[in-house]
This record gives sequence, structure tokens and C-alpha cells, in this order.
Amino acid sequence: MKTLEKPVPPGSTIGIIGGGQLGRMLALAAARLGLKTFIYNDAPDAPAFQVTQQSVTAPYDDLAQLGAFADACDAVTFEFENLPAHAIAHLAEHVPVRPGAHALAMTQDRLTEKTFVEKLGLKTAPFFEVSSAGQARTAFGRLNGQGASKGILKTRRFGYDGKGQAKVGSADDAAKAFESFKGAPAILEGFVDFSYEASIVAAHGADGAFAAYDPPENDHENHILRRSTVPSRLSPQQVQEAKTIAKTIGDALNYVGVFAVELFVGKDGALLVNEIAPRVHNTGHWTIEACQCSQFEQHIRAVAGWPLGDPSRHVDAVMENIIGAEADAWEALARTGALHLYGKKEARPGRKMGHVTRLKPRDR
Amino acid sequence: MKTLEKPVPPGSTIGIIGGGQLGRMLALAAARLGLKTFIYNDAPDAPAFQVTQQSVTAPYDDLAQLGAFADACDAVTFEFENLPAHAIAHLAEHVPVRPGAHALAMTQDRLTEKTFVEKLGLKTAPFFEVSSAGQARTAFGRLNGQGASKGILKTRRFGYDGKGQAKVGSADDAAKAFESFKGAPAILEGFVDFSYEASIVAAHGADGAFAAYDPPENDHENHILRRSTVPSRLSPQQVQEAKTIAKTIGDALNYVGVFAVELFVGKDGALLVNEIAPRVHNTGHWTIEACQCSQFEQHIRAVAGWPLGDPSRHVDAVMENIIGAEADAWEALARTGALHLYGKKEARPGRKMGHVTRLKPRDR
Repeated sequence: MKTLEKPVPPGSTIGIIGGGQLGRMLALAAARLGLKTFIYNDAPDAPAFQVTQQSVTAPYDDLAQLGAFADACDAVTFEFENLPAHAIAHLAEHVPVRPGAHALAMTQDRLTEKTFVEKLGLKTAPFFEVSSAGQARTAFGRLNGQGASKGILKTRRFGYDGKGQAKVGSADDAAKAFESFKGAPAILEGFVDFSYEASIVAAHGADGAFAAYDPPENDHENHILRRSTVPSRLSPQQVQEAKTIAKTIGDALNYVGVFAVELFVGKDGALLVNEIAPRVHNTGHWTIEACQCSQFEQHIRAVAGWPLGDPSRHVDAVMENIIGAEADAWEALARTGALHLYGKKEARPGRKMGHVTRLKPRDR
Repeated sequence: MKTLEKPVPPGSTIGIIGGGQLGRMLALAAARLGLKTFIYNDAPDAPAFQVTQQSVTAPYDDLAQLGAFADACDAVTFEFENLPAHAIAHLAEHVPVRPGAHALAMTQDRLTEKTFVEKLGLKTAPFFEVSSAGQARTAFGRLNGQGASKGILKTRRFGYDGKGQAKVGSADDAAKAFESFKGAPAILEGFVDFSYEASIVAAHGADGAFAAYDPPENDHENHILRRSTVPSRLSPQQVQEAKTIAKTIGDALNYVGVFAVELFVGKDGALLVNEIAPRVHNTGHWTIEACQCSQFEQHIRAVAGWPLGDPSRHVDAVMENIIGAEADAWEALARTGALHLYGKKEARPGRKMGHVTRLKPRDR
């Protein structure tokens, strides 16, 4: 196995598993630093393939292909958290993988993740394991007992953009929702009547350094991120608390790379951890324009064992996603700000096609 | 021939001739906009090859290869101005080429360029055609007659980073310098005792729109750009004058794309045009971090017929080139700012290996 005691020098190859927009933006950031990239994706014509010389199409559990890929790389990372654990373990036998298997294992499963967060003394919505329709009923009853009249049943794994989630208002609802998941293990979370959503995107370097971006305020529509705004309405104390939450989580995971923590901001000002994403995050896209070192470059720096970059924000910014057919208006959007399009052919409903970041200089 | 009445949509391919750092940064900017790139370079392993799926290695005057390349692209541009005129003409039979043959022809030759600038009523150093050693002597005499005690003999074509230039202090010097150029046609320019150097990087869109960046102040060492600083010492009136100079030149060339005008700032405050570069320019690299739309994205927008982006600067910046063996200090440099490395294998003396941009937020 290659070890990574020293940073991988310019000219080295960073392997990126997943060739979507996050992989693409990671590859573009790596290129700025003089690093080559090798993209691994399970389907052809991936957006990230367009921005690199080296790519391969193979299933994410094809150990032979993963091994050959790893051997051609000096360090490997990924754009999404749902890689099979045995695939990660196999990669790690060949090449440094950052973040590592432990961080993935802790964040792939909502029950493991929430339990981990709770043990760190951080606040979350109340949650209960649900592995059967009966357990769904019991869990709802316990939620009710804590004063919550509504909950959300979520599959423990593979959920994103609201998929694998159902709002439930009774024990019957909860049982029915569980059945609709076709046996997938789930958790029931108490519904949080928050004031707004925020997130903190942060990084741990291979040297243990910590760097956090200014936490944006996030608006969702139909369970999909619509907009991230910096600065948010968070007070300086809340910003500090968000950074402390991120550092606590990153330290506990012995994390290397960029990760995001989604937060609910309670009406009492409390910050509740909603979800941890062990990767660059949609709510950090504004860092490309507004920070000296973007989240993508920061992640590549960490993965390559380089010193972290400066995460400070030098301009106010609003990032808006371009979803589905909204991308047809690319020419008009190009007039309104820094336009990013991801090179996807089909503008399916709900698909993230790009984003636009609008800067608001402070001194005008 | 393909015409370009409408903008080329996302997913189209922009051909870039020249695979050095400028081609590489153009390709990265095109990728942000969802455009594919095809890089044409006359040697293998070009820096820009690393950031695209499509590339070809062939001589710049290979009409068959150029034709096949053009047919695979929706619009073509280049990273350098020394393409053979017949190659451009051939490309233009297949695909829109931006900027066009006229702009290249006017700026490839120092005599044509200076004559063009003078006819526009813009100021330059005094200059004289030199096609023989005798003409070199005569030219020096005429310079002397205008009160200049020194001059610079420059080859009319293919000069960069001080190559093909010689300082001369006498008619004998001038004749000897000409002979050292081995018959290459030259011009003798009067030595300008300027206060400092500046430049203006600007763009004309396909729709005729004009956008100029804030003009940086530029420091050279050994004839190679060391540093560009924004804001410069130029007064608001001089900034306006620099923009007017750029617009005058761009309008007269019917230009589409980004170009730069190098300026001498006289001790009396006068702005003298030194050189026009019909391409993105080293003195505009700071725009990647400091502007919503970088010079690279701006050029791609113009080439693709898209609306120009916002060139306004939202932060102060200093860009420094990383030259030759300085790149060995990449790890230390990565701690100091936004590091860009160009993916070049060999750090030869005088070779531009990368640059670092340091931002100085205004409100700290």
C-alpha cells in the first residue's frame, strides 16, 4: 500500500469516485493546483469525464477495476457517501483514501450518524430506530410522549433530496410509511419546527488543521436546495457555535477532507444537527467565487496532504441552483451572475443542472 | 462553413489552439459554463491536455489536421498570436474563429501594430522600420534627432518575454543588434523613461458589447512579468483613459474576445501604448479570484457568442508569477494565497510554472 506521509506533489493523480457535478468541480479545482485527476463513474458520459484525460466506467463494487484505478492514483476521494464499505476497504489496501472508511461508515446510516452526534453531546431532533411496522407505531408513540405531534420517517441509507422520507402524523401513518419503504430499515425523527436551515462546510487537513467557511442560510423547495445565502441570519455567537459543532464532529471522525453539517436553527436559537455529509456540499458552491480557497480546492488540498487554504469570505454571495428545465434559460442566467453548468445532457425534472452565484460587494 | 449568428449552447465544443497555461485556463473556464473543449497543440503532453477529453497533437500549419479539428468544433480560438495567417484563413473556412484573421494580422507584426495604433490617434513610443543594418543606423539618427539618446531594437514578429529585443545607445549598437537578429525585420523604438507599466485587459462580445477590467500595475524582472497589482497607482481619469484606449483599439479591429493593451505610464502621466495582445493575458490572471467573471470565462463567453460577464472587481489583489525553479516551493506557496500550477513537467529557467494570487479584502 502507498502511504501518504508526505503531500502528493504537483503532477500527481487524484482519483475521484463519482463523475457528477461534485466530481467535476473537484477535478477543476485539482487542475488549478497542477494535479491530474482520474474519474471513476458507474455510467458513461459522466459530467466529470469532460474535464480530465483519465476516466473509467465501471460498477462501484467491481473490485478488480477499483484496484486498477487505485494503482493509477496517488490518493483517492469520492463525491458521494454511498460507496459500499467493502469497496472502500479494497481501495484503501492500494492507496490512501480520504476521508476514510470510518467517516463513511458513520455517516452512511442515519441511525449510526444520529447516535454518534448525540454521544458527542450535540443537539439533534429526537429519533428512534424503526425496523418493523410495529416499531414504527411504538416509535411514534414515544415521540408523542415527548410532546411532538409529527415526525418524519426516513430510510437509514441512500436518501437524498427528500427521497426515502415521509412525514407522519399518527402511529398508523408511521406504520404505513414504513411499509412503503419495502422493508428498508428506517428511523423516525421528531419534526423540528425550526426557524430556518443553515449549514457549516469545514475541512480537516491531513496535518490536523481545521478550517471552516462562513455558514450559509439555506432555502429548500420540494426537498431540493434552492438557495444558499452568506452572510446568514446567524449571530456571531451562533456562527462560532456552528464552527465548534463541525470541529467536534471532524475531530471525532479523525476526518481528512471537506464535510458539511446541515443544521436546523430552532426558534429559540438552538442549532440542531440534521445531517453530516462526508464530502463537498451543495451549500458550499458559493465559496468558488467568494473565498480565496473554494470548498473544492480545500478538499483536494486535504486529500493530497497539502496545507489547507484560506476559507475566509471576501464578498457577500447568494448561490441558486438551476434545476431541470430552468437550465433552458442559460443565456438569460449568464447575464445575472457567475454561471456554472454541469455538462449534463438531459434536463430531467428535479435534476441539478447548474448553479449561479451572485456577488454583492460590501462597499457599494 | 458554420456561421455563428446564435450563441453556441452549453454542451458545444470550443476549439482552443495552443495547449499551454492560457489554453488550460481557458479550458477550465469553458468547463464552468458547461462547454466542452478540444485542444490543438504542436507538441504532446501539453498542460491543457490534462483538463479535457479531446486533444490532438499536430503542427500549426497542418491544414488537414486543422480542418478536421475545426469540423469537430463549434467555434475556435487560440491562446497565442503567432499562428500562420494561412492556417487561420483555413480554419475560418470551416468554423467561426474568434478573434479573426484581421486582428491577428494587425498584432503579429510590431510595425503594422504600431502604425495602426498611431493612426488611431493613440500615443506610442517613437518607432522606425528597420530592414537593414544601414536602416538601423539611419533610424537611430532620427531617434537622436527627436531627443532620444537610447532605443530598443525589436524583431517585428515572434517576440515575447524580452526575446528578440536589444537596448541600443548608438548607431553602431543599432546596426550590430540588427545583424544579431540574422536578417529578421525589426523596428527601432525610442526608449521611454516611464514611471511604471500598466495594462488594460478588455473584451468585445459578439454583440459588440465592451467590458474592461480594472487596469493593473505590472512589474517585470528580466523582461518577464513578476507581479500585477490592483488597484494600480493610476488615477480615476487615467483608468478611464486606459479603458477608452482599449475600446478604441477593439472597435477598430472589429474584435471579438479578450485582448490586452500594455501601457507605459509616462512621468507626465501620459499613457503610451506599448503592445497589443489579441488574447487573454498574464496581467489578467488576478481576475480569476477578484472578479465575478474572469478574463478566461469572458473570452470563452465572447468566442461562444454569449453575453459578456461582469468584469467588476470585488477585492484587491496581487498576482505573482512562479518562474522556473521557484515552483519547487509549491508547498510553501500554497500557504500564501490562491495557487495556480500549470501542469508543466520541467521547471526550466524563465519558464512560467504557475502563479499565486493574494487577495486583500477591502474591509479588514
